[in-house]
Amino acid sequence: MNFDEIQSSKVKHAEEVLKKYLPREQGFQKKVLEAMNYSVMAGGKRLRPILMEESYLLFGGKGELVEPFMAALEMIHNYSLVHDDLPAMDNDEYRRGRKTTWKIYGDGMAVLAGDGLLNLAFETVASAFDMAESREEMKRTAQAVKILANKAGIYGMIGGQCADIEAGTGQEMTKELLLFIHENKTAALIQAAFMIGAVLAGADKEAVAAMEKAAYNIGIAFQIQDDILDVTSSKEVLGKPVGSDERNHKLTYVTLHGLEESREEVRKLSREALHILGSFENRSRFLEELVNSLITREK
Amino acid sequence: MNFDEIQSSKVKHAEEVLKKYLPREQGFQKKVLEAMNYSVMAGGKRLRPILMEESYLLFGGKGELVEPFMAALEMIHNYSLVHDDLPAMDNDEYRRGRKTTWKIYGDGMAVLAGDGLLNLAFETVASAFDMAESREEMKRTAQAVKILANKAGIYGMIGGQCADIEAGTGQEMTKELLLFIHENKTAALIQAAFMIGAVLAGADKEAVAAMEKAAYNIGIAFQIQDDILDVTSSKEVLGKPVGSDERNHKLTYVTLHGLEESREEVRKLSREALHILGSFENRSRFLEELVNSLITREK
Repeated sequence: MNFDEIQSSKVKHAEEVLKKYLPREQGFQKKVLEAMNYSVMAGGKRLRPILMEESYLLFGGKGELVEPFMAALEMIHNYSLVHDDLPAMDNDEYRRGRKTTWKIYGDGMAVLAGDGLLNLAFETVASAFDMAESREEMKRTAQAVKILANKAGIYGMIGGQCADIEAGTGQEMTKELLLFIHENKTAALIQAAFMIGAVLAGADKEAVAAMEKAAYNIGIAFQIQDDILDVTSSKEVLGKPVGSDERNHKLTYVTLHGLEESREEVRKLSREALHILGSFENRSRFLEELVNSLITREK
Repeated sequence: MNFDEIQSSKVKHAEEVLKKYLPREQGFQKKVLEAMNYSVMAGGKRLRPILMEESYLLFGGKGELVEPFMAALEMIHNYSLVHDDLPAMDNDEYRRGRKTTWKIYGDGMAVLAGDGLLNLAFETVASAFDMAESREEMKRTAQAVKILANKAGIYGMIGGQCADIEAGTGQEMTKELLLFIHENKTAALIQAAFMIGAVLAGADKEAVAAMEKAAYNIGIAFQIQDDILDVTSSKEVLGKPVGSDERNHKLTYVTLHGLEESREEVRKLSREALHILGSFENRSRFLEELVNSLITREK
């Protein structure tokens, strides 16, 4: 199989895992369950659960202990999109070519659907303790829950979202603040994916820290590449208007550092990340290709 | 000490526990941390953490394992208030005599503050695994996390909130639906309090189920008493307008069953609940008085 075929089989597998943990649409609370499933099943690359499983396999993980965490991370990613799209936040009416959750179900129900997904994520990982077969596996599971909550919360993704909102309301943008936003809004859930996969597979502290660093690099490089494409690409290639950052006077890595330095930074970050991923006993060619495709993408 | 003095010392203790787990207001995400603390520190009776600790003590629980769960349950209660008050939901501008979170911080930040509290609740209970001293305590901790997620989520509080919103938009109100809403919107977090306290203290399955039943009764009786007072009390005693249910053509237990049957139901439910609480080897006079005061209150 070539890369694209492998990737689409991984997406299919991630969606099968996810569906195991999504609610049946029944009972007096049916509406919120429909809204939750609508949000999660809207498609997407299932990048985070796939990265988590690849990390789990990289460190020799076996069995299904990683599955509830794969589902939970994708639920958390999707709840954050549902809440981000709300009129109270970004007021977006479309995502992935479909109407956003609040446009279909109303904003009250969309608030609840997001809450429902976040809560279900933790309900799902709590069920993983029943799968843990030893005290050691229970400890790993507990450690993985801590990482998930930390990277998704106020010292992770939610922290980044807050700083992003603040930056939009007049707080002066600095290089430090921009990196904080990228690290927490984008890199944090990729870090959760890599770290949880490694922890559940029994990787040692040094390896988990190395995977955290690799995920940081990937998240930041991904964001800088986004900013570069906004300047260098065309609407035809990208499928969305280019030059929007400049029009909106938005400070990005490119406006702060220039195009050349930005390109060099992407190269440096991705070289380091791939070096880390290639440094373990097992190597996953698929994982390395996937990471490379994320960073060097042209759209 | 009399009941009121004991209660106020319990409130103080619950708030000290809570403060241990609330965030320091610093960093680029300072605003959301401020909004979270504003919401949680607005006061309130701290009923749920107090009930949890009483249940823990009732079954001989020792040490601090219950504390992160006390804090987490209060965070969850408060996140639900922050989201309920949003313009997208109930559009309330005041709560406990203070402006609601969204009125102070804006509705985008209030969405995030609620998300932050829900996430922090699970981050907090995840830290409890570090306190567990044996495999048995780890299992109890895992069981307690499952109960918390279940009672707070789509098969608990969020489910009740969804049904309540639906009932307000034309779905026909039936006795069954009304009980579903009360059970999930109100009783579920009280059940979490009682059950988690019991589980962490090592109570057996039968005792945990009995505590779940007692909490169900308390939650439902509390709600019916609310409906009764709306008919029988005066604005002077209640501190809010009475007769609002009738004016809003709201179907309540009283409109469905009449005043006499409703009063009898409150008596029956509370008698059963107090019978359960008095049936264990230890008895807590404070807990029994607290439960009695909740149900038989005149305001």
